[in-house]
Amino acid sequence: MAGAEITAKANGATKPAFARKVVIENVRPAIDGGRFPIKRTVGELVEVTADIFADGHDVLYAILRHRPAARPEWQEVPMEPRENDRWQATFPVEAEGRHLYTLQAWTDRFLSWSRDIVKKFEAGQNLSVDILIGAQLIESAAQRASRKDRGVLATCAEEIKRLAVRDMPGAVKMALSPDVKALMIQTTDRRRATMYDRELVVIADRERARFSAWYEMFPRSCSLQPGQAGTLQDCANRLNYVAAMGFDVVYLPPIHPIGRTNRKGKNNAEKAAPEDVGSPWAIGAREGGHKTVDPSLGTLEDFKQLLSRAKQLGLEVALDLAYQCAPDHPYVKEHKEWFRLRPDGTVQYAENPPKKYQDIFPLDFETDPSQPLWEELRSVVLYWIAQGVRIFRVDNPHTKPFDFWEWLITSVKERHPDVLFLAEAFTRPKVMYELAKLGFTQSYTYFSWRNTKAEITEYFKELTQTDIREHFRANLWPNTPDILTDFLQHGGPPAFMIRLILAATLGANYGIYGPAFELCEGRAIVPGSEEYLDSEKYQIRAWDLDDPVSLSKLIAQVNQIRRENKALHRDWSLLFHPADNDQIIAYSKNTDDLLDIIVTVVNMDPARTQSAWVDLPLETLHLDPRQPYQVHDLLTDTRYVWRGPRNWVQLNPRHLPAHIFLIRRRVRTEEGVDIFV
Amino acid sequence: MAGAEITAKANGATKPAFARKVVIENVRPAIDGGRFPIKRTVGELVEVTADIFADGHDVLYAILRHRPAARPEWQEVPMEPRENDRWQATFPVEAEGRHLYTLQAWTDRFLSWSRDIVKKFEAGQNLSVDILIGAQLIESAAQRASRKDRGVLATCAEEIKRLAVRDMPGAVKMALSPDVKALMIQTTDRRRATMYDRELVVIADRERARFSAWYEMFPRSCSLQPGQAGTLQDCANRLNYVAAMGFDVVYLPPIHPIGRTNRKGKNNAEKAAPEDVGSPWAIGAREGGHKTVDPSLGTLEDFKQLLSRAKQLGLEVALDLAYQCAPDHPYVKEHKEWFRLRPDGTVQYAENPPKKYQDIFPLDFETDPSQPLWEELRSVVLYWIAQGVRIFRVDNPHTKPFDFWEWLITSVKERHPDVLFLAEAFTRPKVMYELAKLGFTQSYTYFSWRNTKAEITEYFKELTQTDIREHFRANLWPNTPDILTDFLQHGGPPAFMIRLILAATLGANYGIYGPAFELCEGRAIVPGSEEYLDSEKYQIRAWDLDDPVSLSKLIAQVNQIRRENKALHRDWSLLFHPADNDQIIAYSKNTDDLLDIIVTVVNMDPARTQSAWVDLPLETLHLDPRQPYQVHDLLTDTRYVWRGPRNWVQLNPRHLPAHIFLIRRRVRTEEGVDIFV
Repeated sequence: MAGAEITAKANGATKPAFARKVVIENVRPAIDGGRFPIKRTVGELVEVTADIFADGHDVLYAILRHRPAARPEWQEVPMEPRENDRWQATFPVEAEGRHLYTLQAWTDRFLSWSRDIVKKFEAGQNLSVDILIGAQLIESAAQRASRKDRGVLATCAEEIKRLAVRDMPGAVKMALSPDVKALMIQTTDRRRATMYDRELVVIADRERARFSAWYEMFPRSCSLQPGQAGTLQDCANRLNYVAAMGFDVVYLPPIHPIGRTNRKGKNNAEKAAPEDVGSPWAIGAREGGHKTVDPSLGTLEDFKQLLSRAKQLGLEVALDLAYQCAPDHPYVKEHKEWFRLRPDGTVQYAENPPKKYQDIFPLDFETDPSQPLWEELRSVVLYWIAQGVRIFRVDNPHTKPFDFWEWLITSVKERHPDVLFLAEAFTRPKVMYELAKLGFTQSYTYFSWRNTKAEITEYFKELTQTDIREHFRANLWPNTPDILTDFLQHGGPPAFMIRLILAATLGANYGIYGPAFELCEGRAIVPGSEEYLDSEKYQIRAWDLDDPVSLSKLIAQVNQIRRENKALHRDWSLLFHPADNDQIIAYSKNTDDLLDIIVTVVNMDPARTQSAWVDLPLETLHLDPRQPYQVHDLLTDTRYVWRGPRNWVQLNPRHLPAHIFLIRRRVRTEEGVDIFV
Repeated sequence: MAGAEITAKANGATKPAFARKVVIENVRPAIDGGRFPIKRTVGELVEVTADIFADGHDVLYAILRHRPAARPEWQEVPMEPRENDRWQATFPVEAEGRHLYTLQAWTDRFLSWSRDIVKKFEAGQNLSVDILIGAQLIESAAQRASRKDRGVLATCAEEIKRLAVRDMPGAVKMALSPDVKALMIQTTDRRRATMYDRELVVIADRERARFSAWYEMFPRSCSLQPGQAGTLQDCANRLNYVAAMGFDVVYLPPIHPIGRTNRKGKNNAEKAAPEDVGSPWAIGAREGGHKTVDPSLGTLEDFKQLLSRAKQLGLEVALDLAYQCAPDHPYVKEHKEWFRLRPDGTVQYAENPPKKYQDIFPLDFETDPSQPLWEELRSVVLYWIAQGVRIFRVDNPHTKPFDFWEWLITSVKERHPDVLFLAEAFTRPKVMYELAKLGFTQSYTYFSWRNTKAEITEYFKELTQTDIREHFRANLWPNTPDILTDFLQHGGPPAFMIRLILAATLGANYGIYGPAFELCEGRAIVPGSEEYLDSEKYQIRAWDLDDPVSLSKLIAQVNQIRRENKALHRDWSLLFHPADNDQIIAYSKNTDDLLDIIVTVVNMDPARTQSAWVDLPLETLHLDPRQPYQVHDLLTDTRYVWRGPRNWVQLNPRHLPAHIFLIRRRVRTEEGVDIFV
C-alpha cells in the first residue's frame, strides 16, 4: 500500500489494480512503524524480520533490500523463513550516515510447480501435462531474461519437452536442477510482487556513539595556581591527566562569555559579589554569545590548540550546547523577537514557579516566524564543527520543540555524519525516548538514581532488551555538576567505587564529572539537596589531584579493562544473574561469538562486606558444565577456578567492592595442570 | 505528520511550517498502526489511549474526536491523563457501520498560566505583571470567541485588570473561576494543536456479530421419510427443533445445483453411483450456479419461505459462500478466462499434490483482468442479500486473495452494514488473523483441537486478552462436517457434553454441526481420520432425533443460560482460575458492573470422575472474602455456599461433566438465614 493508504481506507471498497497475493507485516526493527530511524554503528548488523504470508499454498520468496541513502542501487539478500510465517535476513551497515532497508516478496509459480511435481512424481502419476506447465514457465522466463540467460533457459525448456516424451525422470530432473532454479529465481516476474510500502531508515554512527568514556571538567578550575582562574591552556595541560585515566571524551561546560546582569553568586546566591565568576550556562555578554570563547578562558586559537592537544592524546572534546541566554546576550538586543515579552516590556526570564531564574532568558520557539531563530541556532553547531568539534552535549533539550531537534540533528548529520549529540534530558521517560527517536545519538539516563539491585535490573532490561535499544543509547553518569546523589553523599569512597564500576560495566557509554568524582567529593550544599557545596557551576575550585583518596588509578584500570574487552563495547548482550543476596548484583556481557565474556559482580552496600552464591547460565555462555572454568578478576589479577553454575563471592567495599571477571575456558591439561585461555 | 510522511523522512531536514509542541504516539486501539479497522458491536465502548506529551512544562489538553464515517461533524471528548504520559478517553459506537476516531492535543497557555499563578500567589510574590499576562490571554480569546462569549470574556479581562489594582486576590480568583476556565478551553487557539495524523476506523456490527449460537445442518437430510431426500420445506419444518434448542443462526451448506462431472460417491468414493447426490460444495450444474437453488431442494420461493419461517422462530439463516465451481458450472463455459488452463486445453482442477480434486475447478484470481470476476462474485452476495440473507459463512477464504476479501466485505457492508461474514479458514494463525483484519466479522478457530487445560488456557488468553481481540471474533465449533475430532471419536457422549459446554461458555459465539453433534455421532471413516463415516457431505442421512442419547435438552439448557446471562455475551472478561487438577478447568466471565458473574468448571476427562480445589480471585470479582457467597449451578439448579477463595468441586462426566455457576452475593440474613441474590 502507498503511504497515503496507511490509514484504513475510509471507503475501503476501492478495487486494487490487481490482487497482491503476499502480505508483508510487522517488519522489525522499525520505530513507530518506521516514523523514526533505528541506530547502529558502522560494521554492526541489522537483523530484519517480518511476517510474510500469502493466500493459497504457493511457495513464497522474499528479499531484504538495502542501500546507503545516497546511492540509488539496492542490494538484495534472500530472506529465510523461521517459525510461524516469520522471515529473517541480515545486512551490515558499512558506512556512516543514513541507510534504507525495505522488503519484497512474491509467490513463485516455478518454485510451487517444482515442489508439486516432486510429490506427483513420487506418487507415480502421469506427468505428461504437468511437465509442459514447467516448460512453459521456463519459456516465459526466457523472454524476461538477460540476453545471456535467454538462450540457456529456452534451450532448457526445449530439452525438457524433448526428454518428457521418452525419459520423464530425466525431464523432471533437468527442470529441478539447481542451475535452472537459480536462473528462474533471478528472472522471476516481480510485477506482482508485494513491495513493503515503507523504506525504513538506519542511522549508522561511528563507533564512539556506542562505546565511549566521558570526563566532564570545568576549564576554569584547571589552573595549577590556587586562587587563579584556569584557562583553556590550563585545560589543555590537564588533558594528560584525563588521558592517563583512559577516557575518550572530555566534555567542557559552556566556554562562552558569561552574563553579568542578575549573575548568581557562589553557592547559587541570588546576588553575585564583584569577584564572582557566574554560571557558564548563563551564556552571553557584551563580548559575545554562543560563537564566542570567553576571553577569560582564552581565544579561539587557544581552543583550537586544546582540540589539537586532545587529538594527540586520543581524546575528543565535546562542547555544551545550551540554547538559552543571559540578559546580556547580544541576541537580546539584536533579536528581541526571539524572546517572550512581559506586559511591562521586559523579557520573560526562566521560571519554575515560584522559583525565578532571572539570570536566564529562554528563547521563545513559539514566536512567528521561528525560522531565522532555528537557522541561527544551527549555525552555532556548524560554527563549532568548523573549528573541529564533533561531539555536542545538549543542555535540557526537552525544553525546546521536538521538531526543532529533528530538523537540527538530521540536517547537521546530513553534512557531517560523524557528529554525535548527547541529550541531557532528565525528564519523564517518554520524553527522553522521544528525543532519542528524533536523532540524539546518546542520552543521559536515570542510572544516577537507580541504586538497588531490583531497580538496576528492571531499568537495564528495559534499556537493553526491548525495542528501546533500537534508538536510545544510554550514557551512564554517576554524578554531574547538578547531581550529587544521596548515595554518593553518604557512602564515602566505596560508594564512588561502586557507582564507577556499575556505570563502566553496565554501560558501553558512561561518564563522570571530575575531579569531584575521583576525589570523592560528597558534600552537598544542604542536607537533602543534590547540589554540591561550593559548586563549580558558580565558583572556581582548586582540586588536589594527588589526594590519596583519589580513585584515578582504579578509573584508569577500569577504562583499560573496557578497552581490552570487546564484551564491554556493546550493551545488547547484558544478562543479569541470580545472586542470593540483595546487596550483590551480578551480570555479564559478551561478544556474539562468546569468545569474550565479562562477568561483573558488585557489592552495592558501601558500608559492609557482603557475600553471595552467584548462578551463571553455563549453557547460554557455552561453558561446559562438566568442566572447571577460570574467572580472572581483571581488577586484582586474581584467578579462581569455578565449577558448575553456582559459586561463592565475597566483597569488602572498603577494599574493592567488585569483581570484573574475564571468563577463561579450560582448554587442556598439561602435566596435571589445567590450562585456561 | 501527514500520511506520506509516515516513513522516516529520507532527508529529515525539512523544516516544518511551525514547531508542534505536542507529540501523540502509540494510539490504541489501532491494528497495524491504523491500517485495519477495529471491531465493536452497537452500544459497546471504544476506550482510546495514547502517549501524549510536549516539550517544556506547559499544561496539556487533549481531546478524542469521533464520528460516524457518513457524518461530517466530529464529537469531542476531553481525555484524562493516566500514569506515565498515557491519556485516555472513551466513546460509544451508537449505530452500525464505520466510525472514525482521532486525537488532538495542545499545550494550553491559559491553563499553564493558571497553574503558575497559584504557585506564585501562594509564595506571596508580586503579581502585578503576571495578572496582566492572564488578562491578555483572556482578551485574545475574546477575539476568537463566538459573539455570545466575546462580551463575557472581554468584560472579564477588564474586570481582572481593574481588580488587580486594589484587590489582587480577587483578580486572581476571578481569572481562575471555573466559568472562565471552561470558556477559555472552548475558545483555545488550536492552530498549533497537534492533530494525530490518522483517522482510525471502528466497524460497528449488530450484536449477533458478538453473541450467537449456530447450528449447521444439511437440508437434504431433513426429510422425515427415511430414504427420501429432504427439501427446503423439510428444512423449514426442522426449524422448530432447532429453535427449541435455543440457537440463533441456522447455517446451511451450499443449496445450489451440484455438479455431475467427476461427482464424488458416498464416503468420498472417486466414482459416484447413479443415485449418489454429490457434495454441495461442488457447485454448479446445467441448472445454474451460485445464484440458483438446487431444484431437488426446491425453488427460490421455498427458500424465501424458509427465511420467513426462521424469522418467526427468532432464527437467522446463514448461507455458505464457496467460491469454486464444479466442472458443469455455467461459468466454465461462459467465462473460461476465470480458470487456469492446462497445456492440453483442459481446465486446471483443484490439487493438493499428489491428491487431485477433479470435481472442483478453482477460480483463477491471477488472470488479467480479474475485475469482472470480482464483480460477479460480489453479485452472488448481493443476490442473496436481496433475498433476505444477512449472514454468510465463507468457505476457505484463505485460498483467495486478501485484497479480494477486503474489497468484497467492505463494499458489501458499506451498503448493508448488518451483513456478517464468518471465515472458515483453518490455516496458519497469521493468515487467519489477516482475514479477520481485512473485515471478516467472525472466524473459525483452533478450539476444535485444543483439548488440554494448558492448550485452552494459552489459546484463549491469546484470543481474549491481547490486541487480537480488537479484530478477531472467535466462533467455536466442536465439530463440523469436515472435523470429527479424535476427542469426540473416543470419548462417547461425555466428550460431546464437555466440548459443548466449553464452546458455549468460552465463546460468546459458538456453533455445532447437527444432528451429528447432539446424537453423539463419533464414527470416523477410517481410524486416524477426522472424516465422518457416511459423511453427509456425500450422502443423505436420516437422523433419529428422538434417540435417547440426544443432548438436545442439555443444549437447550446451555443456550438458555447463555441468553439469560450477559456475562456470556462477550469474551473480553474471560479469566482462568487455578484448579489443582489438570483435568479440571475453571474460568469465569462477567459483565463490566460485576452484577453477572458466571464461573464454569469442566471436567475434561470424559472417562473418569475428577475433583479439584478451585481458587477464585474474590477481590477481582468484588466478593467480600469475609462473607459466604452462593454458587448456583444453573445446569442442575443446585446451590452451594462457598467461603473464601478456595473451594472443592467434583464432577462425574457420565452424569454431567461441568458446573455453570452463577455467583450470588449474600445481601442479608433474615431470621438466621442468609439471603443471596
